[in-house]
Amino acid sequence: MTSRDGYSWTEQAGLRPGVPSIGVITPATNISSSNVLYDVVIIGAGYCGLTAARDAAVSEGLNVLLLEARDRIGGRSWSSNIGGYPFEMGGTWVHWGQPHVWREISRYQMRTELESSFDFSRGVNHFQLNTSGGSATMSHDEEDALLASALGKFVNVDGAFGRKIMPQPHDTFHIPEARELDNISARDRLDAIVSSISPNERSVLEGFVLLCSGGTLDNTSFLEFLHWWAICGYTYQGCLDYLITYKFRGGQSSFAINFFREALSTKKLTYGFNSPISSVNDNGSKVEVTTRDGRQFQAARIICTVPLNVLSTVSFNPPLPAGKRSAIGVGHVNQCVKVHAEISDKDMRSWSGITYPENPLIYAIGDGTTPAGNTHIVAFGAHQHHIHAEENVENTLNAVKSLAPGKMDIHRLVFHNWSKDEFAKGAWFFSPPKLLADHLEDLRARHGNIFFASSDWAVGWRSFIDGAIEEGTRAALAVKTELIELHKPVPNL
Amino acid sequence: MTSRDGYSWTEQAGLRPGVPSIGVITPATNISSSNVLYDVVIIGAGYCGLTAARDAAVSEGLNVLLLEARDRIGGRSWSSNIGGYPFEMGGTWVHWGQPHVWREISRYQMRTELESSFDFSRGVNHFQLNTSGGSATMSHDEEDALLASALGKFVNVDGAFGRKIMPQPHDTFHIPEARELDNISARDRLDAIVSSISPNERSVLEGFVLLCSGGTLDNTSFLEFLHWWAICGYTYQGCLDYLITYKFRGGQSSFAINFFREALSTKKLTYGFNSPISSVNDNGSKVEVTTRDGRQFQAARIICTVPLNVLSTVSFNPPLPAGKRSAIGVGHVNQCVKVHAEISDKDMRSWSGITYPENPLIYAIGDGTTPAGNTHIVAFGAHQHHIHAEENVENTLNAVKSLAPGKMDIHRLVFHNWSKDEFAKGAWFFSPPKLLADHLEDLRARHGNIFFASSDWAVGWRSFIDGAIEEGTRAALAVKTELIELHKPVPNL
Repeated sequence: MTSRDGYSWTEQAGLRPGVPSIGVITPATNISSSNVLYDVVIIGAGYCGLTAARDAAVSEGLNVLLLEARDRIGGRSWSSNIGGYPFEMGGTWVHWGQPHVWREISRYQMRTELESSFDFSRGVNHFQLNTSGGSATMSHDEEDALLASALGKFVNVDGAFGRKIMPQPHDTFHIPEARELDNISARDRLDAIVSSISPNERSVLEGFVLLCSGGTLDNTSFLEFLHWWAICGYTYQGCLDYLITYKFRGGQSSFAINFFREALSTKKLTYGFNSPISSVNDNGSKVEVTTRDGRQFQAARIICTVPLNVLSTVSFNPPLPAGKRSAIGVGHVNQCVKVHAEISDKDMRSWSGITYPENPLIYAIGDGTTPAGNTHIVAFGAHQHHIHAEENVENTLNAVKSLAPGKMDIHRLVFHNWSKDEFAKGAWFFSPPKLLADHLEDLRARHGNIFFASSDWAVGWRSFIDGAIEEGTRAALAVKTELIELHKPVPNL
Repeated sequence: MTSRDGYSWTEQAGLRPGVPSIGVITPATNISSSNVLYDVVIIGAGYCGLTAARDAAVSEGLNVLLLEARDRIGGRSWSSNIGGYPFEMGGTWVHWGQPHVWREISRYQMRTELESSFDFSRGVNHFQLNTSGGSATMSHDEEDALLASALGKFVNVDGAFGRKIMPQPHDTFHIPEARELDNISARDRLDAIVSSISPNERSVLEGFVLLCSGGTLDNTSFLEFLHWWAICGYTYQGCLDYLITYKFRGGQSSFAINFFREALSTKKLTYGFNSPISSVNDNGSKVEVTTRDGRQFQAARIICTVPLNVLSTVSFNPPLPAGKRSAIGVGHVNQCVKVHAEISDKDMRSWSGITYPENPLIYAIGDGTTPAGNTHIVAFGAHQHHIHAEENVENTLNAVKSLAPGKMDIHRLVFHNWSKDEFAKGAWFFSPPKLLADHLEDLRARHGNIFFASSDWAVGWRSFIDGAIEEGTRAALAVKTELIELHKPVPNL
């Protein structure tokens, strides 16, 4: 099936909206009656909503309605198989040290379906750094040493590379003094260490930080970057391993579909795709959800997985409390531009590069070889020097070509414009300064009968697929526990 | 309640069998009828059996019977609270990078209940190395450097510290050549590098390897040690973080009880403690389990979580296949001796030490401060120079005192003799050479209607609490899926 989401471009066909995905669900709904009082309505079928729907439907036989604005599951993580090759439109990489996602990979017996994005066994086998000072190539070992050195200086605010100030990464403010680090931006921290880093260190460091945040140096929270560093094990090698190495041979949607199928197998899952929500009204004894096309559904509880940057488009009654409204007003800063390019040069399989600051695409790697024998390059841009990749394809093609001039003979582009996506309004969560210190608990708080669950306010792998599953798990257990206590008294041990 | 398991010793009371634990379940059974055909009987209420029982009882409403030989939950992981302080009788430490256990810690909202075993902020703040060459103290930084250097040489069989030969630690034989490493013992590998390590490096390396395996250098599989190293992130810092740092403020039993309570809350869990199994008979359409006291229970499926070293005490009919019998005949090698000592010297809180090879207790750390203000020392011995700690308490006291002569004014000892425990016959799994290469898949295989699940043959954190939960999860899903397919046809997506 073809989703409305995403774009592909080839010389022959030009730019086309919509790409195929096994995450597109048909039939798009199995709702047969509007006169049902559900135990829980879950808004959103990303990993968070899928997990919540599965756990709720499987456990205790709750009566579950899953509503999704799009025509597909997966939210900000989904894959499109084109020419026998899976292009990851959003969230891609996973690791066995990410607890919630790995528990599911293990449970669905997919642990041997991972492959490495990197293959340095053949081809150019180098890293290319293009800066305003010129272009240089170096070995991947030199690349690693350069980034490790630069990042070490950047994060070393406590003489222990972050271990003292953030010893338990799933508890960001375990050390209360960590709150102060949320007052500063990546730019502020760079200014503090600028005299101790070389020009090349500075270029790769800024490129790497923008790869993570998808924002600008000014709107990237230093604390949140440190949180990423900490949860990656406080090393650059850990960042590589966790952030950008292991992906599914069959693409993300081959993983997500398991959650949906298991939920559906309970026969207690009702679902409706193409169902964006306009309002949620909680009268205290039950909650009514209204879709943009005027359909209404009622439930005892709601699990709302709408991303932070989209929450303002839903009307809540009673209105959300001031803290949550304030956080929504701030929003997150990630406007990552992710572009896949299929190029003819086989040797580029072992290439990586940073082009900064002139180019809209900053960081890129050789990510695979397609069945046609072409190299798959994945490239990332940010809010700094932002482009909408579909608006001017020539511009996008040039941005890819600038990563390695003369080497990028482009057969195909594939991408999803997350910035213009009305159901995402950005890519994975990345916070500006102060948002987490001021509002993390506000974001996590329930509001009457409405539970808010999203990777955007997970405590561990916040922003990641893992965080989405963490939050869906939390919400489903909370709803289940509450409904059991209310309606089905059980003996305590 | 007081368990039959464990021992405590004080000068005043002498040696006493049995220690208190919140893991002791009362009433010991809720079985009311013997004429029930269960969907699944689960043998063993360690973390593996508890997870399987919970997942089975919660999911799809399967009718579950949980049988346990002991008077308590937890198997080889349980805690005793004495004088307001939790002593960990077996498995202790967890980490947020261990996926299955962390998913549960997160789900049960226990993520902020972890504390570090180490506190180097006060007291002696040193590492003590006692060898046949004499005694030396050094800083913890020097300790770390010594161990990191020694371990690095030990594991570096591929020029990449194990990353090339074991790139996906949850898939031990991902690189087929890794099988060859299971032909050699820790002794063999030591012999190969002995010329490149200093006497102190050799002492701490041998001590650390025996801490992990609980065996001897000759019966410790080098491959399995490399697997530990790999899954700890290929660094000594990772080993410290994952293996011996974070524990529950309230003890392991405060965690395990959540699984049991959740399973019980479904009202679909029947359970019986004090119910060791003598035989399991599978007639093809159903399976009959007989306890040593002659009670019989029937089920469609069995999940057997009996540890490897105990499987020979259960009679299976039809007999187990040759591969599984062969693995059972080999068994695992871990005869760890774990002894807790409460000592008066407050300054020893920041002490650690290795005493090797003369002393029965090899590796020890200051692990906490009791409410009485005493220091809690935990010490580990192995099969090499093995003792049964309760047989000659004077001997055990001397072994503790030898760790830091003059510093160990002992108020209390607490321990569990895992070697004499008929339901464990050893501590956590550690393989001798060849066992995993020859029989890992045999151990994981089902036998008719009997599923075998244990941390002893987990694929990821094998030997750990995480591996137990991994395996319980796997078995419950397999049983559930099979019973649904057999009896309750559902539409496929």
